Amino acid sequence: MRAFGADTRLPTVALVLDLLRERTTVSRVELAEATGLTRATITNAVRKLIDLGFVHEVGTARSQRGTPRRLLELQPKACHMVGVQFDSYAAVAVVVDLAGAVVARRELPAPGGRDPDAVVPEFAALVRDLLASAGLARPDVLGIGLATYGPQDRDAGVLLTPQPTPAWQGYPLAAALAEATGLPVAIENDATAAGIGAQTPGDPQPNFAVVFMSGGIGAGLIIDGRPYRGATSNGLELGHISVDSEGPRCVCGNRGCVDGVAGPVAVTDRARSDPALAARLGLVGDPLADFRSVAAAAAAGDPEAGALIGVSTRALAVAVVSMVNLLDVGRVVLVGNAFADIGPVYRQALQDEVDRAVFMRHVHEVRVELAADVSCAAAVGAAMVVLRNLLESPNVGDRPAEG
Amino acid sequence: MRAFGADTRLPTVALVLDLLRERTTVSRVELAEATGLTRATITNAVRKLIDLGFVHEVGTARSQRGTPRRLLELQPKACHMVGVQFDSYAAVAVVVDLAGAVVARRELPAPGGRDPDAVVPEFAALVRDLLASAGLARPDVLGIGLATYGPQDRDAGVLLTPQPTPAWQGYPLAAALAEATGLPVAIENDATAAGIGAQTPGDPQPNFAVVFMSGGIGAGLIIDGRPYRGATSNGLELGHISVDSEGPRCVCGNRGCVDGVAGPVAVTDRARSDPALAARLGLVGDPLADFRSVAAAAAAGDPEAGALIGVSTRALAVAVVSMVNLLDVGRVVLVGNAFADIGPVYRQALQDEVDRAVFMRHVHEVRVELAADVSCAAAVGAAMVVLRNLLESPNVGDRPAEG
Repeated sequence: MRAFGADTRLPTVALVLDLLRERTTVSRVELAEATGLTRATITNAVRKLIDLGFVHEVGTARSQRGTPRRLLELQPKACHMVGVQFDSYAAVAVVVDLAGAVVARRELPAPGGRDPDAVVPEFAALVRDLLASAGLARPDVLGIGLATYGPQDRDAGVLLTPQPTPAWQGYPLAAALAEATGLPVAIENDATAAGIGAQTPGDPQPNFAVVFMSGGIGAGLIIDGRPYRGATSNGLELGHISVDSEGPRCVCGNRGCVDGVAGPVAVTDRARSDPALAARLGLVGDPLADFRSVAAAAAAGDPEAGALIGVSTRALAVAVVSMVNLLDVGRVVLVGNAFADIGPVYRQALQDEVDRAVFMRHVHEVRVELAADVSCAAAVGAAMVVLRNLLESPNVGDRPAEG
Repeated sequence: MRAFGADTRLPTVALVLDLLRERTTVSRVELAEATGLTRATITNAVRKLIDLGFVHEVGTARSQRGTPRRLLELQPKACHMVGVQFDSYAAVAVVVDLAGAVVARRELPAPGGRDPDAVVPEFAALVRDLLASAGLARPDVLGIGLATYGPQDRDAGVLLTPQPTPAWQGYPLAAALAEATGLPVAIENDATAAGIGAQTPGDPQPNFAVVFMSGGIGAGLIIDGRPYRGATSNGLELGHISVDSEGPRCVCGNRGCVDGVAGPVAVTDRARSDPALAARLGLVGDPLADFRSVAAAAAAGDPEAGALIGVSTRALAVAVVSMVNLLDVGRVVLVGNAFADIGPVYRQALQDEVDRAVFMRHVHEVRVELAADVSCAAAVGAAMVVLRNLLESPNVGDRPAEG
């Protein structure tokens, strides 16, 4: 098993780039002050970022003591990264710049029950289209981050799970997409990517959990700005914690899993089991589309739809309280396309239960928030993983030895 | 809120001391090879440890190339640390040496419903006795680690919880015990201390969770050898995750908490509610003593006692599966005096359910283990916190500036 991922400090180049994303223009002296690192360390990191073309010197400012300070500026268009997030039911691709801004986005056809041999070439073609439409050529792009189900072997770039179909398990996913696009590919757990995508530079509270709800329910944990991954890139499998120890066995083996009560698939299965309700709500058999229909009906006052959403919010709230009690975090961020319309209803239900039931509520506040872009944050996080991998590589920005 | 604690690497002096605990005798070259650090960094750390008296040079060995290497040896008796772990129902103190070996131990009177003004002087007197009986004077002792309930403010040395009685909340616990003993005092979450105490130097799997069961149920998480603490030294509140979302409200605010089903207080409350059973088992009203009686009767084949233990093991197993699904760990260690006799029964029940129900079971094994010393590991961990705090202080072993 690999290291758990939360043990190392961010490398200096990554720290400096984050500060530049936060402040846009900054001097080396300010960087040293903000990080507590020495001038020499900062100068070395800045030199690497200038060599990479990520940062330019853009003039000088006078300090209070009159010494001129050269100002540094992030070059957000110096390179771009692609992020793709998918599960069985939905897929989305984004292109982000160095500042983390989304410059292009596109929904991709969901894999459904198809095997990777069919899906990967389709993803590759659509990513190439997306880059062309954004006016980007291959040399402008650092790589592709691909966020999906755990468990995973991130080093090997393969999934260790038979989702969406058995053919995905052990399939050389990263290698196949890399070959089809000519770009390096890194894989990432979708909920972890959601956590990375929900971060903002300069966040004063870089410790938080995310709840990621798409077809299923997952979660992620960011500790001091870095993701907690667990042994097999499968921290945190929130959907499969039990909220009913005497409940039915889930396909995962556990009893009374919250995903089987609260998840969009469970909610829409229940809705479709009532033909009159299914007809009234116009359900079509696509869990995420149908979940939005149930949610819209609930919001419009349909009592049966409201009851289904109520069962989901209550069970998810119990699971989130358990997660907060285990992790002692002060913030929970909701991410994922299942929250696209009904996010505020879930946010309020979770906040109410957290305020009522969390063990530490008398000691510190626990805020439940909706991510700014619930549908794309995981894809954005996957894209940012590509940049992080570059910045965390030991030789980033090293000049080639002179021969 | 303070940093979450799992973000920084172990300082070099701590790494070197851990290697010396593991190997007893080692050369600087071997230390550099084992850590991947430079000779200069190792030489500096070793110099600090020699200055502290923790390490001696003990002769030379010839390397394969014939260069003599000076051998370093840990001096386990160079100093000692005291660890105290308590809750309402039980308290224990240990003295450990630099190698982490227990050189003295003693049960202390449980606080019960008493206020800290009564308990702290008693603890202080008994710790002084314990040190005297071990032949140790104050200068031989680095300090006292005190492990108990979270949430806590570790920096301030105060508890943020009204346990065992309201007077403990905000009481200057560390300062009062320090004043009464003349030794520095650090406080720690008991389950986190259990995790630290369950570590062994050179552990090839330094990522694991502990389940700590004394009067209540807690848990801890060790990531790459360092404890995860959460915002208020209250990671992980395993006892208050819900195993029944429709269950009764717990005093903590959550519903269907596992502590209310599986914990020793719940088990013995249930046993005592049946007067015939209580009489047959000789219950006396002390939850931990009575829990051992119920456990002993269950082991001897008493069906009612067996049923009570079965309810506890099943609920705890469900909670542990949820915890493993969230944390994606490969190892769970059981610690705490509630496991003193019946530990193997719990271990087997938890292993069975983990094997049956954990999400990642097809990808990696999850082993459930009993700690080598279930009753003292948390106190040992508290003692080791004192050493860690010293080794992690920025100026450890620095020579005073020459004037």
